[in-house]
Amino acid sequence: MRNKITNAISDFFFEYETPRQVLVRNRRVGVVCRLIQLGVLAYIIGWVFIYEKGYQSTDTAVSSVFTKMKGVGYTNVEGVEKVWDVADYVFPPQGDASFVVMTNYIITEGQSLGKCPELPGKHNCTSNTDCEGGSFKRTGHGSMTGICDNTTKTCEVLAWCPVEDDHHIPEPPLLMSAENYTLFIKNSVTFPIFGVTRSNLVEGIDAHYISKCLYHPEKSPLCPIFKMGDIISLSGFNFETIAKVGGAIGIVVDWTCNFDLDVRHCKPKYNFHGLYGNPDEKDKARASVGYNFRFARHYFEDKVQKRTLLKVFGIRLDIIVQSLARKFDVIPTLTAIGSGVGIFGVATVVCDLVLLYLLPKRQFYKNMKFKYTDTHGQEPDSEAGSTETETHK
Amino acid sequence: MRNKITNAISDFFFEYETPRQVLVRNRRVGVVCRLIQLGVLAYIIGWVFIYEKGYQSTDTAVSSVFTKMKGVGYTNVEGVEKVWDVADYVFPPQGDASFVVMTNYIITEGQSLGKCPELPGKHNCTSNTDCEGGSFKRTGHGSMTGICDNTTKTCEVLAWCPVEDDHHIPEPPLLMSAENYTLFIKNSVTFPIFGVTRSNLVEGIDAHYISKCLYHPEKSPLCPIFKMGDIISLSGFNFETIAKVGGAIGIVVDWTCNFDLDVRHCKPKYNFHGLYGNPDEKDKARASVGYNFRFARHYFEDKVQKRTLLKVFGIRLDIIVQSLARKFDVIPTLTAIGSGVGIFGVATVVCDLVLLYLLPKRQFYKNMKFKYTDTHGQEPDSEAGSTETETHK
Amino acid sequence: MRNKITNAISDFFFEYETPRQVLVRNRRVGVVCRLIQLGVLAYIIGWVFIYEKGYQSTDTAVSSVFTKMKGVGYTNVEGVEKVWDVADYVFPPQGDASFVVMTNYIITEGQSLGKCPELPGKHNCTSNTDCEGGSFKRTGHGSMTGICDNTTKTCEVLAWCPVEDDHHIPEPPLLMSAENYTLFIKNSVTFPIFGVTRSNLVEGIDAHYISKCLYHPEKSPLCPIFKMGDIISLSGFNFETIAKVGGAIGIVVDWTCNFDLDVRHCKPKYNFHGLYGNPDEKDKARASVGYNFRFARHYFEDKVQKRTLLKVFGIRLDIIVQSLARKFDVIPTLTAIGSGVGIFGVATVVCDLVLLYLLPKRQFYKNMKFKYTDTHGQEPDSEAGSTETETHK
Repeated sequence: MRNKITNAISDFFFEYETPRQVLVRNRRVGVVCRLIQLGVLAYIIGWVFIYEKGYQSTDTAVSSVFTKMKGVGYTNVEGVEKVWDVADYVFPPQGDASFVVMTNYIITEGQSLGKCPELPGKHNCTSNTDCEGGSFKRTGHGSMTGICDNTTKTCEVLAWCPVEDDHHIPEPPLLMSAENYTLFIKNSVTFPIFGVTRSNLVEGIDAHYISKCLYHPEKSPLCPIFKMGDIISLSGFNFETIAKVGGAIGIVVDWTCNFDLDVRHCKPKYNFHGLYGNPDEKDKARASVGYNFRFARHYFEDKVQKRTLLKVFGIRLDIIVQSLARKFDVIPTLTAIGSGVGIFGVATVVCDLVLLYLLPKRQFYKNMKFKYTDTHGQEPDSEAGSTETETHK
Repeated sequence: MRNKITNAISDFFFEYETPRQVLVRNRRVGVVCRLIQLGVLAYIIGWVFIYEKGYQSTDTAVSSVFTKMKGVGYTNVEGVEKVWDVADYVFPPQGDASFVVMTNYIITEGQSLGKCPELPGKHNCTSNTDCEGGSFKRTGHGSMTGICDNTTKTCEVLAWCPVEDDHHIPEPPLLMSAENYTLFIKNSVTFPIFGVTRSNLVEGIDAHYISKCLYHPEKSPLCPIFKMGDIISLSGFNFETIAKVGGAIGIVVDWTCNFDLDVRHCKPKYNFHGLYGNPDEKDKARASVGYNFRFARHYFEDKVQKRTLLKVFGIRLDIIVQSLARKFDVIPTLTAIGSGVGIFGVATVVCDLVLLYLLPKRQFYKNMKFKYTDTHGQEPDSEAGSTETETHK
Repeated sequence: MRNKITNAISDFFFEYETPRQVLVRNRRVGVVCRLIQLGVLAYIIGWVFIYEKGYQSTDTAVSSVFTKMKGVGYTNVEGVEKVWDVADYVFPPQGDASFVVMTNYIITEGQSLGKCPELPGKHNCTSNTDCEGGSFKRTGHGSMTGICDNTTKTCEVLAWCPVEDDHHIPEPPLLMSAENYTLFIKNSVTFPIFGVTRSNLVEGIDAHYISKCLYHPEKSPLCPIFKMGDIISLSGFNFETIAKVGGAIGIVVDWTCNFDLDVRHCKPKYNFHGLYGNPDEKDKARASVGYNFRFARHYFEDKVQKRTLLKVFGIRLDIIVQSLARKFDVIPTLTAIGSGVGIFGVATVVCDLVLLYLLPKRQFYKNMKFKYTDTHGQEPDSEAGSTETETHK
């Protein structure tokens, strides 16, 4: 018994089976099939391996972004000069990846809780019966008291009074000086599978360089300091238009890296694009143009709580990190080779179809390729008698 | 020499090899193997190609979200009427993808830095020796002075005084009117590999439609304006419960797109779900229920710095963008075909095992399939003598 | 006709073709080829299936993070004692995934809009001609008035006066007590493809456990409460250094899950690392060290708008969720098997090359493997005459 197993194993190791093949010497079939096979080979090597880099596995990064604005704004509204610094025009202040730079505003000072008439147009009335006491309007400023104000012909509301009048947006925008602000972006990316961490302050971008550089798409594409005006124009917008009604700009930091090369070649690329359509296009049918939000500063005056309400129009900047790293890996390589061999098999099937069904000598080739076991009715004489049963017929 | 190479190349191009095969005419084997092969074919075509769309490559989007709340809240605490507008109840104000809508609060007005007794229960004492001067308690309000207050029987602390008493949460929640607030979501997604940018304001969602619509899962599934009460109920919560202690709701904007169709068919779907368990479940053993944070407004009164402390209970809304786009691509298609051919090969191996080891006539088929080169002891007469050495035996 | 189709179908179903093979009985070839084949098999089973779990498909999660700080800070600047609670030292207050904990600050109190000289060093001058009226400097504090201040020898600016002097950073940092603050992280992840939702408050992490636990990498790796000092030291920083100039720390919540096991085994791992280099390294050449931002509190004093400006140095904590779940799936399994079979085919090709080109008896094996159709000049006698044309020669 043990002998038998040993024999089987030695047989297994000392034997090797290889398919028997027919070598068809036919110009037409030969050329067609070789071309098909070369095409498949070219696809696998050229497309899958060289062009699409199918021998690499991919990884996307986890990232962290920190931003810092610099620059001073200046407004002169009816003779009152004001300066605006970072603490005043950036929301939120702590340097997030997504923030708003105020470029225009409507200020309503000294609001306190009380009763006052609504804005004309918001809730017009002719008599008290038009104003249902205690009811709200979704887009209104407060809760109606049930009284129709005779002067303004609008319902009286319990609200922060006087109510904000935002019918008129200042033009030109009050903070046109925002064009000269600068934005500093610090971005760190980590590719967890490959274990690589990179910062956008790559080799050569040191403190000395940063103190002087300004981003330019061709001249200094790695400088992490951006002028607001440049960001807007690179996104294809007109600064004055976007500064007036606000808008949202995406700054895409693109980390497309090939870690088969030195990591030093893994550098960020910055792209700029508007996020919700272009306010220049005067595309009034578009659902929602501009970017604004309301913001209040509360204070006490003579023990009465008051607030300054700001309707802020601004440029919202979203720093969006997009990453795709690639590195040689055994598994995608062998998977690509393996399925390439499979497609080679498909090429063989196609050629066989030509050979066996389309050529005039198809019957001849069929006989060459196939051996038939005609056992519908009869048993072969002896199972082990001969290795070539046909010769017995 | 050159002739030789030319010959080799012409031989290569004018020849074609195809495997020789045995055509086994046996009903049992035939049916079994054909069924296995058809099964594999059905799997490849039906499952990999049609069901899982294995001929497509995938891409996830980078996205940007902007939100805007509308609506006015109203509170009446002990006869004092107050209205709350967006600038008061949304944190942060600038329209982030993740924000909190205040629904309930505990207000502590007029705090100033000084010395006052701790809350009962926080650090009880009977004499000064129980209060170690200068030490802190992680959950306390300040630094202990070393004095035990006789009236409250708690340690005196250096803190913002009077200390906040948050033992009693207002019920019903003070801002039940939050149920009628509306949320407007603007979401832009970009699929970088496919180069497609979409906004949730898809074709047909124009300014006119938005001014009137309200999201409804069946009637208006594309309207980007959501009533707070609807969001809460679609998440499976009870508004009053969540408004009292706060909670976190995820609004998933699902972009599952097939770019083999027109991009117009790429539309968002909105799903709503609670993020950290349901406060309704009275599952007191669960680690952490509710959502709250503290927020202070600083001011000066008679040159003394004071603050109003708000413990805000609110509904935190996280707009989560989830995206998966698919498009026809040559490489996954050919990889799928290639590995499908490989699995066909596995089917052949299985059938061969049946043929060669299980059938009664296995020895006959073995002889048909295999040709043996018995060269253990002897050399063949002539290497090139015959193409069929067996006939020489 | 119909008969013919029926015959073709029955032929198709009752037939089975299997490749004819040569069984080469040669020790060298046998051993070499079997070893190659076993190597391929070991690679497919061992590497692709067991090590890389190639039978699984993968999914990344959408996640939501909520944070809450606890603890009280204490400062004593020139005899003035102050306490700082969560509402004072966390920016923003609402518990975001990314926030800043103030550890040091430069306070400039009582600023109002007016004219005052710039900081020495910012814009030095000797006479009015050095100060161009109306012009700005990107890093300055305001708009120049055109006057050179005689006392400070700097240009006068229209700015928030007095201007902030941030030349001297307090050392030791004012809020060293930040070391004892604690951070509570609530994190929920949803794997959309697998339909699994998990929270970092996993089984066993209940309210009772949380009230007492503190994260420790070995002793309590699942406790979601972290001491600030621990976070800093686990990131490899020195607390006092980072507290002085600020810094950014990433807390990676790593969800690497295998859903072939019970979901209970899907637990988060917390890792800590500095995001932009180590401030300890005194690597002054590095572009940007520290983390700070400016923040203002506005108020009115005698009807004049004033503000308190804080330059906040702090530790920015980014909670980064990293996720990769795996689960058995038919398609990657069969793709792996299919391309494995393809690689088997490559092994056969390699062995055939050895057999047909390197062995001394290569011509013999060539004749065994190939059958030639020498049809360059002649037609075979009869197409269907014989299945083995060689025997006719």
